[in-house]
Amino acid sequence: MSQSDFKWSLVDESNVIPNGFHFAGISAGLKASNKKDLALILAPKGSIFSGMFTQSIVRASCVDICEKRIKKSSGFLRAILINSGQANACTGNLGLKHFQIATAKIAELLGIKEEEVLMCSTGVIGVPLEIKKLVKNLPNLVSDLKVNNFQNAAEAILTTDLTLKKVLIETIIKGRKIKIAGLAKGSGMIYPNMATMLAFLTCDAGIEKKEWDKMISNAVKKSFNAISVDGETSTNDSFVAINAGDKIDKIFFPIIQQGIDIVCQNLAKNIARDGEGANCLLEVLVQGANNSDDAIMVAKSICNSALVKTAIHGCDPNWGRIISAAGNSGVKFNLDDVDLYIGNDHILKKGKLNQYDSQKVKDYIKSKMNSTYLENDIVQIMINLNTGKSKGTAWGCDLSKKYVEINSEYTT
Amino acid sequence: MSQSDFKWSLVDESNVIPNGFHFAGISAGLKASNKKDLALILAPKGSIFSGMFTQSIVRASCVDICEKRIKKSSGFLRAILINSGQANACTGNLGLKHFQIATAKIAELLGIKEEEVLMCSTGVIGVPLEIKKLVKNLPNLVSDLKVNNFQNAAEAILTTDLTLKKVLIETIIKGRKIKIAGLAKGSGMIYPNMATMLAFLTCDAGIEKKEWDKMISNAVKKSFNAISVDGETSTNDSFVAINAGDKIDKIFFPIIQQGIDIVCQNLAKNIARDGEGANCLLEVLVQGANNSDDAIMVAKSICNSALVKTAIHGCDPNWGRIISAAGNSGVKFNLDDVDLYIGNDHILKKGKLNQYDSQKVKDYIKSKMNSTYLENDIVQIMINLNTGKSKGTAWGCDLSKKYVEINSEYTT
Repeated sequence: MSQSDFKWSLVDESNVIPNGFHFAGISAGLKASNKKDLALILAPKGSIFSGMFTQSIVRASCVDICEKRIKKSSGFLRAILINSGQANACTGNLGLKHFQIATAKIAELLGIKEEEVLMCSTGVIGVPLEIKKLVKNLPNLVSDLKVNNFQNAAEAILTTDLTLKKVLIETIIKGRKIKIAGLAKGSGMIYPNMATMLAFLTCDAGIEKKEWDKMISNAVKKSFNAISVDGETSTNDSFVAINAGDKIDKIFFPIIQQGIDIVCQNLAKNIARDGEGANCLLEVLVQGANNSDDAIMVAKSICNSALVKTAIHGCDPNWGRIISAAGNSGVKFNLDDVDLYIGNDHILKKGKLNQYDSQKVKDYIKSKMNSTYLENDIVQIMINLNTGKSKGTAWGCDLSKKYVEINSEYTT
Repeated sequence: MSQSDFKWSLVDESNVIPNGFHFAGISAGLKASNKKDLALILAPKGSIFSGMFTQSIVRASCVDICEKRIKKSSGFLRAILINSGQANACTGNLGLKHFQIATAKIAELLGIKEEEVLMCSTGVIGVPLEIKKLVKNLPNLVSDLKVNNFQNAAEAILTTDLTLKKVLIETIIKGRKIKIAGLAKGSGMIYPNMATMLAFLTCDAGIEKKEWDKMISNAVKKSFNAISVDGETSTNDSFVAINAGDKIDKIFFPIIQQGIDIVCQNLAKNIARDGEGANCLLEVLVQGANNSDDAIMVAKSICNSALVKTAIHGCDPNWGRIISAAGNSGVKFNLDDVDLYIGNDHILKKGKLNQYDSQKVKDYIKSKMNSTYLENDIVQIMINLNTGKSKGTAWGCDLSKKYVEINSEYTT
């Protein structure tokens, strides 16, 4: 049985999401804009939760609690309450108190225990959660719970995002339909090891906790931890992945892993291309590395370079900056071995400048800016280090004046 | 004998520089602008050289040679040739060849050996050095060598810099006048562990190599490695420090260290405040850390945060971003212990928001923007981690649309 026997296909949003999961999303008035700001995910009994959280020392207390609850739980957790508007971070004991008030109330409404609920927040740091408004609206939120309210939930978790980030895929394994659905938020402040990023994944193929943790960790490495908007990591980054349903035979694990990877990379790329002020998605593929960690590290160093990002913004094929950023990654390589491509153009051949049409490369980058066609906004850079056999990809975006404008004028 | 018995004073540029050193700076037509682009520093016989170089894997070959020559030399090196215009990096074997042609010629003109010469380059990466023009102008350069041509040399090493970076200080130790002079270039692409930064220091107090290396390493940690403009490290960063003259008694070493620190910090701060598009100097002091390395690491993480830099640019006292950046430094601390000040205003008291006048803090930041008064352009942030007794400072600048403009339109 090979992976190629199976194909995951994108499913339209109007379809039902993974079996047994319910979603809700409403406006509780936590944002000045009156947009949706409160979401709920309800998982079936016996669901398996896995999670990865911000590496920052300064963490919202809700992140600590969620991490603890996920660590010790197996088939115990049931729900995730998510709010946008206030991050519930850096507010001292009040943060913890508000977490407990909100999760206790939602547990009561759902008829489950407080410890069975997680809560994730995103928004302004250091401002107390508007807890009264939030609690008052929890009954409305619970009434909104439906199998096809996935879209509402995806809307409710957004902050400065310009686009909705959700994806739903399915495949059939031995006559059984398997679905994986993911939703995410994040635009500025995105860097490896998570950032002001929230992402949630649900899957209706049952997999035991240990294996699920491993699969999720693998997928995160190649997706959320391989994107960079501005090199920032936030107080609240969280990714929670849940599976439920009949256990699936382990020979099908590679298929499920493939599906998780697709969903995570789709969400991650959409976060990168929605980077504040971004006009394109920068995709850097590094080949010929000694191992895939090295490859991703070089690719991330390039995606994270302010000088590369501004050059791309100016449609300037400035290979010097690309090579210089690769050199700062901490990964050892020899410049005399390196091949560099921008799009299809071979710029460096074994470390030496190749004959190429600079105007053509400029035009290539320009054609990717503000493209209205999906997936036609990707500026591709490929480096072959020619030292090993491993590869890895990272994603970022260009750095524009708009980024500076958004972030020097941001208030709520 | 305490350090406070001695005072270093700034000396006017028209004064003579450290005893026995000669400087030159001319235009050789390497830049489109016709500005000065070729400099020379000639040290007395028996001088002691120390150096620190870029940590990037992708290095100009001249950097490798300089490092090697400094490592094995003791009282052997004599001269440094410096050019701006082309970085002589990423040009394959041609880079090495051009280094050798230029250093052999200058050695011949000075009547010394080729191995006694260093050469540092800065400018565009990947473009061959205009070696013919350079060599043709070496005789003019040598004729320009004078004790008081310090200013010419400081001008000739600049690239996109808007300001000259040089400093000359003196003190009297036991009736003997001691001078230390430094010059530097650098504006964009500046990060810890060096960047497109060249700096040179000369001192006329004789100190043996081992001790001198230690002093220079100490000074670099607290100056050039504590600044950040855009998180970039370049192919060519070099700092060379030379001493010459009668040996000085080791009880005076702390005085000399103090002098070196003053010169290096002055140059480093001027590089940070000349960051591309910068309107102020950001100075972050971290106190109460477990050791000074930790303190500097937290301070650098704040200076290097795009979100802090854009907030400062918008005169926004966004303490959430400051604390978040501190949390990403990798240094452990407890938010509930932290005090945060912006200027004189106490923003966080033991991790909790203090009463402060937000408009006053905004006005404080605003007053530092584009100040025409020297040293009145410093936005000061102070964090006390309250976990230990060590402190450290880092410097950066705001991030403006101008930075994006300069770097998306930069050609030569």
